[in-house]
Amino acid sequence: MKKIDLSHLDDLALGSVFLATGGGGDPHVPQLITEQAIKAYGPISLIAPEALDDDAFIVPIGNVGAPTVSLELLPSVDEAAKTIDAFEAHVGRKVDAVASFEIGGGNSLIPLVAAAVKGIPVVDGDGMGRALPEAQMMSYAIAGVRPTPALALDYAGNQATFQTKTTEVYERHIRSFAMAAGGMITTAEHAMSGAELKRSVIPGTLSFSIELGRTLRENRGQAEGLLKPLQDIFVPSIYGECRLVFQGKVIDKATRIVGGYDVGEATIDRFDGSGEPLKISIKNEYLLATIGDKVIASVPDLIVIVDYETGTPINAERLRYGHRVAVFAVGCPEFYRTPEALRVVEPRCFGFDIDYVPLEKL
Amino acid sequence: MKKIDLSHLDDLALGSVFLATGGGGDPHVPQLITEQAIKAYGPISLIAPEALDDDAFIVPIGNVGAPTVSLELLPSVDEAAKTIDAFEAHVGRKVDAVASFEIGGGNSLIPLVAAAVKGIPVVDGDGMGRALPEAQMMSYAIAGVRPTPALALDYAGNQATFQTKTTEVYERHIRSFAMAAGGMITTAEHAMSGAELKRSVIPGTLSFSIELGRTLRENRGQAEGLLKPLQDIFVPSIYGECRLVFQGKVIDKATRIVGGYDVGEATIDRFDGSGEPLKISIKNEYLLATIGDKVIASVPDLIVIVDYETGTPINAERLRYGHRVAVFAVGCPEFYRTPEALRVVEPRCFGFDIDYVPLEKL
Repeated sequence: MKKIDLSHLDDLALGSVFLATGGGGDPHVPQLITEQAIKAYGPISLIAPEALDDDAFIVPIGNVGAPTVSLELLPSVDEAAKTIDAFEAHVGRKVDAVASFEIGGGNSLIPLVAAAVKGIPVVDGDGMGRALPEAQMMSYAIAGVRPTPALALDYAGNQATFQTKTTEVYERHIRSFAMAAGGMITTAEHAMSGAELKRSVIPGTLSFSIELGRTLRENRGQAEGLLKPLQDIFVPSIYGECRLVFQGKVIDKATRIVGGYDVGEATIDRFDGSGEPLKISIKNEYLLATIGDKVIASVPDLIVIVDYETGTPINAERLRYGHRVAVFAVGCPEFYRTPEALRVVEPRCFGFDIDYVPLEKL
Repeated sequence: MKKIDLSHLDDLALGSVFLATGGGGDPHVPQLITEQAIKAYGPISLIAPEALDDDAFIVPIGNVGAPTVSLELLPSVDEAAKTIDAFEAHVGRKVDAVASFEIGGGNSLIPLVAAAVKGIPVVDGDGMGRALPEAQMMSYAIAGVRPTPALALDYAGNQATFQTKTTEVYERHIRSFAMAAGGMITTAEHAMSGAELKRSVIPGTLSFSIELGRTLRENRGQAEGLLKPLQDIFVPSIYGECRLVFQGKVIDKATRIVGGYDVGEATIDRFDGSGEPLKISIKNEYLLATIGDKVIASVPDLIVIVDYETGTPINAERLRYGHRVAVFAVGCPEFYRTPEALRVVEPRCFGFDIDYVPLEKL
C-alpha cells in the first residue's frame, strides 16, 4: 500500500485542479488542512481498488455546493472525520476506507483529511475521473450504487440525513440542503462494498493526479511547452487524447449562483484579437467550448483552462477578466462514453442541444 | 380520557379552519383520511396535557409546506403513522402520544391519523393556538423545546432527518427540504417530555376547535348572526376578544410561492363600494388587516375570513376574486402576548413595520 505524505500534496492539488475542469472547489484551504492532518496523524494509506476486500465497507466523502462558496466558507480539520463518525453512527457500521466523489480541486483532498484523522485508507480512484456538478453523474451512481443512507454536516455542526429512492431525487435534496446551510456542506453518501467499488470506481486517479501535478510543476512555463509532456502522460492513461485548443485573454466571465450551482460563461479572445472568440459554458465546471457554431470540446470530455505563462490550472471561481490563458481538451475515461453514462452526462443533460462527439473525432 | 370519533370530524375540520386564520392547509383530504383511519382503527383517545406523565415521550407531527400544495399533493392514510414509525426508529424510543404543531386546517387532523393508526392518544392542545408559518413561532420552541432530532417524509417515501442547534436554522433546513420534496412534507419534530409539554402547549384547543365548529354549524347563516354565538364561546376562552371587523367582496387576491410559503395580499371592498377597502397581508396565514394606514388587526391576533352567506371559514388558498366574505378578528392566547413570544411573532417578524397593539386596544 502506497502512502501519501506531505511531499505529495502540492502535486496532488495542482493535478487535481487540472482534472477538475474548473470545478471541485478551491483546494487551497483543503490542502492546508490535509497538511495539518498528516502532521498530526502521519501519512495516509492509499489503497488500490483491487486490494479491497469484496465485503469491505467504503464511503465516498466530499463537499457539495457552489465552488465560489469554498473561497469564503472555510472547512476545518475535523469536519471530514466528524462526517464519517456521524455516518458510522447513523448506519451502525464502521467504515473501512473512504473514497472521492470526484478527482477535482478541494474534493480530492477532503477524503484524505478524513482518512488521516480516522486512520483508514483512501481509495486510489474516484467517482468521476474529473469533476461534474451532480450526484447522478458519479460513476458509482451510474453503476447502480444507491446514494443513501447519506449524511451531511454543515460548517456550524448542523446535521441532516437522507434516504431517497433515486439518485436524481437525492441530488435535489442534498443540493437544497447545501443551499439552506450556507452554500457548502460535507457529505458521506453512495456507501458501498468493496465488490461494488471495484466495478464502479474510476481507478488510479489519485496517483494519476499526483503524477499530473508533478508534470505540470516540472514543465512550468508557457502553455505550448506543456502540450508534449501532458500528451506523454495522458495518451497512455485512461484519458487518452490531449489537445491544446486555444490561447488568449479572458474578455468576459460571469457566473451567478443558480439553484446551488455556479452558472455562467467565459469568453476568451485570441491574443492578436483575430477570429472569433472561444466561449466556455460553465455549471460549476467548464462544460462546453465553442467558437461560433463549432464545438471544440464538450462534456463529458475535459475542458481545462490554465494560466498561459505558468500552465497552472485555473478553477472557474478564480477565472477573471484579463487572465491570459490556454485551453486544453482531454478525452474522458471510456466509462463515461458508455450509453449508461452518456444518458446522465451527455451535453443535453446540461441543456446544450448537441450530440456528444468524442474529442478525437472533432 | 375523551374519544374523538366520526361524529366530531366535521366540527373539528370546520373549527380548525376558523382558527387557522387562512393557513394550516386544506382539511378536506386529511378529514377523509382521518375518517378512514377511525373506521379502520376505532375512535382516537384525546388526552389532556395535565393527564400526561411527566416522563412521557410526546412528538408533535404535521405537514410543512405551502398550503396551496395541499390542494394537489394529496396525503395517504399511512403517511402520518409511517412518519412516527420512522421517527421512533431514528431516536430509538417509542412515542407515547402525538401533538399538533398548530390547530389549523389539515394540520389539526394529521396527528389524529397518526394516533389512530398507532393506537396512541393525541394531546388536547397544540403549539400555536392558531396557525403560523414558521417553526420558531411554535409555543414549544418559544418555551425552549429543541426542534431536533426531527424526521421528515415526503409523499414518495423519501426521508430526511435533521439535527440543528437552533429552531431558526431548523426552520430554514426543513422549509428547504419541503420545497425540494415537491412543496409539502410530513414532519415529526420538537419531541419532548410530558413535563415540557405541560409548560409549552396551548391547552384544550382540539376540544375548543370541535366546540367552535359546532357553533359555526349550528349558526350557519349570514355573518352578522354569527358574531354573538362566536363571542359566547371566545370571550370566556383562552382567546377573549372577538370582533366582526369587515364585510364585503374580494376584489383582488394574489399569492405566489416565495421561499416555500404562499405570500401575497387580498383586497376586500365594502358591498356598497363605499370607503377604503380592507387589505389583508398573507404569508400562508392572514397576518395583517388594514384600512388605509389604520391597523384593524395584526398577528399574533387572529384574522379570519368567512363566507358571508354561510359563515364557513375560508383558507387563503381557497379565497378567490368575487368571494362575498366577512372578516373576524379574535384575540390570541395570552402566551403569545409575552415578551418571549412577541420576540418571534410580532408584526416586525413578518416584515410589517408596526408595533403590536392587542386587538382590544385597537
